[in-house]
Amino acid sequence: MRIESDLLGTMTIENNVLYGIQTQRAVNNFPLSDKTLSQYPAMIKSLAYVKAACVRANQQLGLINDEKADAIFASCNNLIDGLYHDQFPVGMIQGGAGTSTNMNANEVIANIALQKLGHPLGAYQFMHPNSDVNLSQSTNDVYPSAIRLSILLQQPKLIASLEGLIERFSEKSQEFKHILKLARTQLQDAVPMTLGQEFAGFASTLREEIKLLNQLSPFFYEINLGGTAVGTGINTKKGYADLAIKQLACLTELPFVKAEDLIEASSDMGAFVIYSSALKRLAIKLSKIANDLRLLSMGPRAGLSEINLPAKQPGSSIMPGKVNPVIPEAVSQVAYQVIGLDSAISMAAEAGQLQLNAMEPLIAFNIMEEMALLTNACSMFDQHCVSGISANHERCHYLLDNSLALVTALNPFIGYDAATNIAKDALSSGKNIKDLVLEKGILSESQLADIMQPEKLTEPA
Amino acid sequence: MRIESDLLGTMTIENNVLYGIQTQRAVNNFPLSDKTLSQYPAMIKSLAYVKAACVRANQQLGLINDEKADAIFASCNNLIDGLYHDQFPVGMIQGGAGTSTNMNANEVIANIALQKLGHPLGAYQFMHPNSDVNLSQSTNDVYPSAIRLSILLQQPKLIASLEGLIERFSEKSQEFKHILKLARTQLQDAVPMTLGQEFAGFASTLREEIKLLNQLSPFFYEINLGGTAVGTGINTKKGYADLAIKQLACLTELPFVKAEDLIEASSDMGAFVIYSSALKRLAIKLSKIANDLRLLSMGPRAGLSEINLPAKQPGSSIMPGKVNPVIPEAVSQVAYQVIGLDSAISMAAEAGQLQLNAMEPLIAFNIMEEMALLTNACSMFDQHCVSGISANHERCHYLLDNSLALVTALNPFIGYDAATNIAKDALSSGKNIKDLVLEKGILSESQLADIMQPEKLTEPA
Amino acid sequence: MRIESDLLGTMTIENNVLYGIQTQRAVNNFPLSDKTLSQYPAMIKSLAYVKAACVRANQQLGLINDEKADAIFASCNNLIDGLYHDQFPVGMIQGGAGTSTNMNANEVIANIALQKLGHPLGAYQFMHPNSDVNLSQSTNDVYPSAIRLSILLQQPKLIASLEGLIERFSEKSQEFKHILKLARTQLQDAVPMTLGQEFAGFASTLREEIKLLNQLSPFFYEINLGGTAVGTGINTKKGYADLAIKQLACLTELPFVKAEDLIEASSDMGAFVIYSSALKRLAIKLSKIANDLRLLSMGPRAGLSEINLPAKQPGSSIMPGKVNPVIPEAVSQVAYQVIGLDSAISMAAEAGQLQLNAMEPLIAFNIMEEMALLTNACSMFDQHCVSGISANHERCHYLLDNSLALVTALNPFIGYDAATNIAKDALSSGKNIKDLVLEKGILSESQLADIMQPEKLTEPA
Amino acid sequence: MRIESDLLGTMTIENNVLYGIQTQRAVNNFPLSDKTLSQYPAMIKSLAYVKAACVRANQQLGLINDEKADAIFASCNNLIDGLYHDQFPVGMIQGGAGTSTNMNANEVIANIALQKLGHPLGAYQFMHPNSDVNLSQSTNDVYPSAIRLSILLQQPKLIASLEGLIERFSEKSQEFKHILKLARTQLQDAVPMTLGQEFAGFASTLREEIKLLNQLSPFFYEINLGGTAVGTGINTKKGYADLAIKQLACLTELPFVKAEDLIEASSDMGAFVIYSSALKRLAIKLSKIANDLRLLSMGPRAGLSEINLPAKQPGSSIMPGKVNPVIPEAVSQVAYQVIGLDSAISMAAEAGQLQLNAMEPLIAFNIMEEMALLTNACSMFDQHCVSGISANHERCHYLLDNSLALVTALNPFIGYDAATNIAKDALSSGKNIKDLVLEKGILSESQLADIMQPEKLTEPA
Repeated sequence: MRIESDLLGTMTIENNVLYGIQTQRAVNNFPLSDKTLSQYPAMIKSLAYVKAACVRANQQLGLINDEKADAIFASCNNLIDGLYHDQFPVGMIQGGAGTSTNMNANEVIANIALQKLGHPLGAYQFMHPNSDVNLSQSTNDVYPSAIRLSILLQQPKLIASLEGLIERFSEKSQEFKHILKLARTQLQDAVPMTLGQEFAGFASTLREEIKLLNQLSPFFYEINLGGTAVGTGINTKKGYADLAIKQLACLTELPFVKAEDLIEASSDMGAFVIYSSALKRLAIKLSKIANDLRLLSMGPRAGLSEINLPAKQPGSSIMPGKVNPVIPEAVSQVAYQVIGLDSAISMAAEAGQLQLNAMEPLIAFNIMEEMALLTNACSMFDQHCVSGISANHERCHYLLDNSLALVTALNPFIGYDAATNIAKDALSSGKNIKDLVLEKGILSESQLADIMQPEKLTEPA
Repeated sequence: MRIESDLLGTMTIENNVLYGIQTQRAVNNFPLSDKTLSQYPAMIKSLAYVKAACVRANQQLGLINDEKADAIFASCNNLIDGLYHDQFPVGMIQGGAGTSTNMNANEVIANIALQKLGHPLGAYQFMHPNSDVNLSQSTNDVYPSAIRLSILLQQPKLIASLEGLIERFSEKSQEFKHILKLARTQLQDAVPMTLGQEFAGFASTLREEIKLLNQLSPFFYEINLGGTAVGTGINTKKGYADLAIKQLACLTELPFVKAEDLIEASSDMGAFVIYSSALKRLAIKLSKIANDLRLLSMGPRAGLSEINLPAKQPGSSIMPGKVNPVIPEAVSQVAYQVIGLDSAISMAAEAGQLQLNAMEPLIAFNIMEEMALLTNACSMFDQHCVSGISANHERCHYLLDNSLALVTALNPFIGYDAATNIAKDALSSGKNIKDLVLEKGILSESQLADIMQPEKLTEPA
Repeated sequence: MRIESDLLGTMTIENNVLYGIQTQRAVNNFPLSDKTLSQYPAMIKSLAYVKAACVRANQQLGLINDEKADAIFASCNNLIDGLYHDQFPVGMIQGGAGTSTNMNANEVIANIALQKLGHPLGAYQFMHPNSDVNLSQSTNDVYPSAIRLSILLQQPKLIASLEGLIERFSEKSQEFKHILKLARTQLQDAVPMTLGQEFAGFASTLREEIKLLNQLSPFFYEINLGGTAVGTGINTKKGYADLAIKQLACLTELPFVKAEDLIEASSDMGAFVIYSSALKRLAIKLSKIANDLRLLSMGPRAGLSEINLPAKQPGSSIMPGKVNPVIPEAVSQVAYQVIGLDSAISMAAEAGQLQLNAMEPLIAFNIMEEMALLTNACSMFDQHCVSGISANHERCHYLLDNSLALVTALNPFIGYDAATNIAKDALSSGKNIKDLVLEKGILSESQLADIMQPEKLTEPA
Repeated sequence: MRIESDLLGTMTIENNVLYGIQTQRAVNNFPLSDKTLSQYPAMIKSLAYVKAACVRANQQLGLINDEKADAIFASCNNLIDGLYHDQFPVGMIQGGAGTSTNMNANEVIANIALQKLGHPLGAYQFMHPNSDVNLSQSTNDVYPSAIRLSILLQQPKLIASLEGLIERFSEKSQEFKHILKLARTQLQDAVPMTLGQEFAGFASTLREEIKLLNQLSPFFYEINLGGTAVGTGINTKKGYADLAIKQLACLTELPFVKAEDLIEASSDMGAFVIYSSALKRLAIKLSKIANDLRLLSMGPRAGLSEINLPAKQPGSSIMPGKVNPVIPEAVSQVAYQVIGLDSAISMAAEAGQLQLNAMEPLIAFNIMEEMALLTNACSMFDQHCVSGISANHERCHYLLDNSLALVTALNPFIGYDAATNIAKDALSSGKNIKDLVLEKGILSESQLADIMQPEKLTEPA
């Protein structure tokens, strides 16, 4: 055990841990959930990138000597390489606007550096978590910058997962290209379309989500690093902010820039709010698609049954042979969760007061959670469901053929009124449209066949 | 025109209006929406009831002379009788925690009373909106009490409308009592049930809503009248609170009681939050039912088509003969709106600060809106949809008969494994379960007929 | 009275009204709220623009004769000019995915045209709401296109209102440029800043909202006009879609383009979801600012009292002289309402099924409401509050001077540890930082004066 | 490794695990989050209680022999005693309406029982997860019943934690009983109250939450056990439902009863919706209180500073001596999270279709999460914050004394108009009310002292 001290007094710390007294206080103070920073490698790496950038800026300005600076920089690189992530026990939901997270990083980096320099853990006189590692910094500029970076680091995974799903829908749209079926509006039989068109629509609508995420994520390039406590840059040297941000851009290969108004940027949660909204939009679309797949696969006998979802697990302990659309159901639940977490973000964002938003840790936590859930859900949807969907060609054909939908296609040939009368006849007699048209001698068989060509039914004339 | 004055100065007021300077200021200050207090008769009546109760309490304590008191009381009665409601132009969304609404009432009542006493409008030296009409009162106790009362006045309409809908579902459950059909879980074919059971379920689930509303509305009997500004009862005489509340109970025949902790009650929005949650729960259930009806009526040919919703309007300008489930669609939209308004209430409730919640006007407005929307939606649902639903008996029978659902009923007779094999056979061959069982000689026709009796399929054995 | 008929039968219509049977059915079917289409001129104009564009396209393709086409076009122009808006009585919340709104427009336009052509109202054999006015169209492409247009028509008002507010904050930031004050993080005394910086931040953060709205509104240029029922363009001629969209772009001077995937576009609510999210973000920021102003103006004696909001109305009937921050309170309520309406939009968007989203009317209604509320709230905030804010220069100075905040500025000169000790001394003794520094002889008066220069405290060194 | 098989085929299972093929499929199918059933002991115990009750009912009806029944019962008791909880790896967010959770329990119980009976793991011919452990059961009645029970098992912890917090506020209200201070409405100086009254209000408002939870939790006593697949009780013997429920009541000592309408109960999420709403209400109140404490402790110099929160951790790496209200900040974040999770529950509840709600796993997960977060937050709030709050007696006195609030107390003695004039004088001159009253000779010093007695200022006269 070693003894550490801070403004509030002293505390014994287990000697083999790399974090220190402020981390330990936070662990004691916020026993809220089992989600700890150690489970969020992207956030730990992001903190390390930011600290690495800051120490280089400090070094350039002559504020720290080379030995210390290099030790800090090397320690940050260890974290970036994935080492020591178990030394981040602070909870994700925490008061203090991220101070505990920042101090956890400061303490771990200081102790790694102390080891490198041959000092014992906790010998902060040689390498201080605040005076050295946190030099020219404040939680209020480091923490928001690191969250932005960690979102940017996570986004490619989400997009890759989403691209996989889109690709699957595209493949299926090709596979189902020639399957003519009934389109439904307001759940009522409407007009002909192809199953390929339906699946292509799923791909199209998700493609827009990639575009949107790529359109909004650049908001995160604008950071308030160098603003320190409230954006005035108190206790930094002129030029420090620009240097630090340039270093960060260089290290991460991401085009970070300084926020135009650092005061504003210190408390502003706008980028998180709109990015989370985009995640919500993706969730809404995924759930709509999942629900469509459940509708189209209703059955196996007494529903639409136009498609089959792959069987993933026995559906019932009591009903032999039952198989359920479990993957789409899980997708919708993920969607509802994301929408709920987005609501929490809205409330947290609204609760900012004066020069800071103390609720930022919840915002960070929820965006991370939304991204992870959506990334996993897209892969699951892709691999466990969409890739294995098959079409019931005959069923599609049968439902279309027996529907009243073909009436609409007759409009231009026999007029709306005549068409309406045929529709009424069909409905009351139970007959099919084609039979009625032929029976009544309205059109010849060859005329009808011509009108009923798939490409004529599913495109402008 | 007449000239009126207040703390901030003077203003000219049109001479024929009954409201005064503070109302006019509010109209000018909050040009936010076209929803004005005049459109909410229950709230105006509630304010009048509260004012009437207070003046009687003041009179009993000798704080106001009989002439004035009687004039005020009579003026309140005019409002309760529905007169002068057009004199309440303040907007429903307003700052000031309801002060504008309270002052609108004070001014109108003062001016009606002035007329009764033979004085000109605005001659407040004879009858003052504050010193007389608002005597022993503060917006902070009058306004919350009046909102509670207005909810209690509106609730019977909501419940009557809901009862109508429940009654209709009950009737239909009787009508459809003997129609055997397929139950579906997770949208997949499950086991037999009757259409009557399905509709009885709709009635049952809504009946619970009436119980819940009746269980929660008594929270509104607890009021903070007499607490004045912050609950300490400053500037009231001992006993006033009890007298005023007793008067209000007497006038309204509702069992109002004084809140146990008047400080707490002054800023507490708890009763609104949970009552709005109950309205949200009703909304959720209505939307689920509406969605079920849309699923069951999918078609007319290429969906479940187990029931028909009454045709209410042509469904399409382009598709002849199409009729859509427009009423259930409107019901779900109302439900989403109610859920959204409830979210707004949660935020407003959370935003209370220290001894008051300044957001109370939004809470009042949204609860009124939720109640009105739900009241109208239940009636609409009842009269324009549920009452006209008919069953497609043969279709129900056909879908059940051709489904695999009957396999489950065979379990106790032939075992789960044999049943699973039959299910697999049926699925691959497309045959129906009964035929397969007979074909394979597993059961005799009479055994099968016995098992397949509706009451044996839809109840414990 | 005249008699009209449709698929479902006949109905008598008052002879002087311009709408017809389908409008009347909708009025009867959806008695949900008092919000009718007639109150939304931008939507009526947008419908008219779309109809005008379609008729020109039909004319070019030879689908309608010139006399009819010109009459329809002229009728649309009447609506665009603001005439006949009282003839749109359908409710904003409606089932049928907008069919009632579309048919209301079709009927009114047909009847105006009939009048122009010298026929009696309702003589649809000469000008049919469906066959002529709605030619080549479906509610499912007209309605979503018109909503998009109406949002685009409303946006300039919102932005103008927002610009006014931003301008006011900018002016104030200039006015308060030299007022040094205490910045607060987590509501605790932090470091020095200027009141000008604080107000400039309000302007900056809102400026981003204009950028965001302008970045997202182009999503509405992409429309599905010509896709008709489900996006396959059934019953349109090749080329129609492009012609109609080009006409619409020409008439409105807005760069409309055809959606890449018309199937997808028919049911997709994505543009509404993200635009409403942007409105939510604006709401969140407005409420945060409103709350800041309430915090800064707490008092008049026992709060921060750094600024004074203009007195807009007497605050209390019981507390003489009390004036409340009523305008910021109303702003926050508007914000909560917008956030709630956005939640309802999310739910409605998620509820789309297969080839259509039947909940689109609620989405349209809520976006219109959000825009109107925010437009009005920004103007109100600007004119009734921000423009009249004054600063309490001395109070700002006093609070800063007596705070511990100046300690941070001493760090670089006397070190963090010495600074911490001074802070502790100050806290326990109640003394002010400057006095302590001088008393202890740590710095000379002139050194201190130099450090304490405003520009040194509020910018990087 | 052992090989297991089900409807879909075979799979190898690690030989030392107690779960089987269906659990393994679920683990593979739903790689969504790291929250697994094993982390929710109350849910595992609840499943075990339900299974134990069912096996006893089956035994009484002669459906299973005593040896098997006793082995199952003993296995359930092992789970109830906390053993084998690591054998529940299924994710909390899952498709299939809880089937995976139910099958995880069935498989683990079967394997424990097999061990007890001397058979190898996986020898299901001697003890079958479905035919024996799940006998007379369906996920659709077991799972909802178990969730209800697990909420009931968790509630006492939440209430205990809440009671601790209430107790702390009560103690503080006693401690601060005689500290006279200023009440604030709309953040503006209002009238006198005591700090004790303020803290007593916090206790009162939370006490109502215990009442509400106790009023709503009995909804969970009503269960659908015995309804099996859809509520018709298919494949159960008459009387089974009553027996099973009676057994469950007996084992848990909780008064479970059979739902009146089992069809309705199978898909109804109403009890969860309203209970989650009550949790939301608690969250709203906690956040309001947390925010009040942050307002009252603003400072240390330049805010209200009426109370001091205990220092829990250094507040800033850059600002020496800064201490922040970290615990109340964490409380508010928990509150926002709970409100967000409640939104997700509303959406999931609305998404029920026909005879089941497939989204129930998300509902269960979120309620568990809400309860855990609130339980932890109340304890944290109690122990790390409220218990250590101290009052700044002199500051309270000073702010009140120098405020205009005393003017209201003068109303009854000098009249509203005279009081208003004094208020105006005070405001413009900066003088204090008492001095002005004496200076103007309006009241004598002894009169004034009499009026200003604390009990006269904070209660009705």
